[in-house]
Amino acid sequence: MTDLRDDGAAALEWAAAYLERVRELPVLSQVEPGQVRIALPDHAPDEAEPFAAILRDLDEILLPGLTHWQSPRYFAYFPSTGSEPGILAELLAAALNQVGILWRTSPALQELEEVTLAWLAELLGLPSGLHGHLEDTASTGLVTALAAARAAAPGRRVVVCSAHTHSSTAKAARLLELELRLTPCDTSFAMRPDLLDLACACACVATIGTTSSASIDPVPALADRCAEAGVWLHVDAAYAGSAAVCPELRPLFAGWERADSLGVNPHKWLLTPMDCSAFFTRRPDDLRRAFSLVPEYLRVDEDVVSLSEYSMPLGRRFRALKLWAVLRCHGRDGLQAVIREHVRLAALFEEWVREEPGWEVCASRHFALVCFRRDGTDEENAALLERVNATGEAFLSHTRLDDRFVLRLAIGNARTTEDDVRHAWNLLRRDAL
Amino acid sequence: MTDLRDDGAAALEWAAAYLERVRELPVLSQVEPGQVRIALPDHAPDEAEPFAAILRDLDEILLPGLTHWQSPRYFAYFPSTGSEPGILAELLAAALNQVGILWRTSPALQELEEVTLAWLAELLGLPSGLHGHLEDTASTGLVTALAAARAAAPGRRVVVCSAHTHSSTAKAARLLELELRLTPCDTSFAMRPDLLDLACACACVATIGTTSSASIDPVPALADRCAEAGVWLHVDAAYAGSAAVCPELRPLFAGWERADSLGVNPHKWLLTPMDCSAFFTRRPDDLRRAFSLVPEYLRVDEDVVSLSEYSMPLGRRFRALKLWAVLRCHGRDGLQAVIREHVRLAALFEEWVREEPGWEVCASRHFALVCFRRDGTDEENAALLERVNATGEAFLSHTRLDDRFVLRLAIGNARTTEDDVRHAWNLLRRDAL
Repeated sequence: MTDLRDDGAAALEWAAAYLERVRELPVLSQVEPGQVRIALPDHAPDEAEPFAAILRDLDEILLPGLTHWQSPRYFAYFPSTGSEPGILAELLAAALNQVGILWRTSPALQELEEVTLAWLAELLGLPSGLHGHLEDTASTGLVTALAAARAAAPGRRVVVCSAHTHSSTAKAARLLELELRLTPCDTSFAMRPDLLDLACACACVATIGTTSSASIDPVPALADRCAEAGVWLHVDAAYAGSAAVCPELRPLFAGWERADSLGVNPHKWLLTPMDCSAFFTRRPDDLRRAFSLVPEYLRVDEDVVSLSEYSMPLGRRFRALKLWAVLRCHGRDGLQAVIREHVRLAALFEEWVREEPGWEVCASRHFALVCFRRDGTDEENAALLERVNATGEAFLSHTRLDDRFVLRLAIGNARTTEDDVRHAWNLLRRDAL
Repeated sequence: MTDLRDDGAAALEWAAAYLERVRELPVLSQVEPGQVRIALPDHAPDEAEPFAAILRDLDEILLPGLTHWQSPRYFAYFPSTGSEPGILAELLAAALNQVGILWRTSPALQELEEVTLAWLAELLGLPSGLHGHLEDTASTGLVTALAAARAAAPGRRVVVCSAHTHSSTAKAARLLELELRLTPCDTSFAMRPDLLDLACACACVATIGTTSSASIDPVPALADRCAEAGVWLHVDAAYAGSAAVCPELRPLFAGWERADSLGVNPHKWLLTPMDCSAFFTRRPDDLRRAFSLVPEYLRVDEDVVSLSEYSMPLGRRFRALKLWAVLRCHGRDGLQAVIREHVRLAALFEEWVREEPGWEVCASRHFALVCFRRDGTDEENAALLERVNATGEAFLSHTRLDDRFVLRLAIGNARTTEDDVRHAWNLLRRDAL
């Protein structure tokens, strides 16, 4: 039998030791496809095994198959940090095993989620009074937003965005059978409001901090146009939104307070373990119109609207607990310090690239993502990326900008130091030769 | 700064002590709406707080606002157990903070999920070779299934189910703009295959263990009809599916191996903390057709299909770790023992009700849910339910069957003993007077 105290102490020690040694592990997993699978038994055991066997196999079988998102040398996609208060809150959430269906099935889950989202809105400089709830990921948030927009504008079946909008918009549009209309972008990969076509549109998705280059769509102009046309404006700030905790970065978020809905992922840049995606809207009634459905076995005499009436899943886990713990145990000051350091390090890296002959910065840097490339062909840049990632000493990813293969270095792990960034740069320069 | 070792030890002790005392806590939270909210500060703190403050407020503010799903006296809806290996695996998952996007972003996450789902399929007596993956909840699984069904049968926009099908089918149908067609049920609340109308249908949702009464739709007959008509058959076994670990209960699942897709929630009756919903299909290519979408920044030279191509969210957390830990640390024998004890206790309770004058069993019992009522009006039964729940010593829920208010007692917590069930029965009899 697994003992929560004894086995828990071993699990905790494993986790603490893991975070101490994670910098030394190969960031990108070096296994071949199927290598983990083949090392695992074909069948579940008949008899109970000790929890120690889980920890043993975690070390021996799973560890080589992990790409270490907790590594300070993880610079790919958008990095993330599962920080200590968030990790421990997940332990507590699992122990409490709350299932939020109706309010009464966990009043604390629902009210803590509402309060924590209000805290987060204030930290980000958003207006008070927004409805806020948590989703697993921004992909689900996009479905929520577009479903509400579709319901609010019957007959209008077009979603307007750009080629730089995250693919979750296209995926949600496909699910909802909405047509995607791409607005051309300017040279900084931002939507051109003068070329915006909102005919038959129910929604427009603008992004603050696109995935490719962290570019910023002109939200104020888009908000004007959407308001005029009665089109639902969703602002996707899944990555960059967390940076709004720093007042000096707020100008980059101009206009987002006018969005009908917006998404920010604390599991990306706000020290919260996966999964935790915040969804805000000033039109909660439209969400309810799209999603609310209360069957008899859930009908109770309660004057409280359950959070499940605002989105797709019926049951929700106690995700708010980790966000609440993160906001409190880092505090506004602590969160700001982390974001500022990441922006500083990214600016530093950008400067190194700019000053180095044979290298080029390929997009304006607003946050902590630098897009760059080495002089040479796409193939040469792709090969350079593979060489660097194969060292296991840093992990970067790529995108295409202006039809060229571009490297991306994103800083977002709380343990990342200037030395880590310098190490990545040294690897790039060494392997570029 | 939160310290994973020191604060972790305190969190672990809190969790262990919580599970030791949970039987003594009022099962259904007794707070008024807003009571938790008002006790929480209006703003996040500027400065970091110690993690100890989280534990303090958990005791003082949140605890009264929790409905204790971990209580052995929780008999409402479908109970659930977050068992020790699952809880500790969630701690590890949060510490590892894996984000499964592409295979390479966490090979171990993807391959462990595939292997664990294959283990689960085998434990449940399902055929080998099914595609399996985890979703957060069965609601999302319904969207996955119906989206695939819709894509596989262009132009057919009807989903066939019954009034006893879970509301997540209606919710998914609304999202996907499919029309719902209800098939009449027989006196045991099962769909009548002779009245099945599959015209223009893309999907049929059959349930093994409905939420109201745990009734069982005639899956073999429905599978025949669906195969004939080329209609996607989804079997919703979210609650009852876990019981198929017991070979003697397998006859209740006859035909489910012929489903195009099916869902089973280990977070309901298989000792896994929320959230963990298993989705199986023999038509994974149809899922990919509905969901796959790989943008440039995720394009890599990899001969592996990422799990994100089979459903809506792009990023997935390391949910498989807890299911793997649960299956191993309980073993097949341990899981069977729990299910069998629950079925035994439910049969016992059913017998008590049958033998007591003035009480009536209102539906056949197949699993561990008993539907029953006291002679009298709906209002009297509703009032009885409220009185029992208000004691805090047991928590039951209700449904309507044959247009009558019916009480539901579901057994599904691993810590529930015969004494707990007897205590609930004594409360019901006492409060019925």
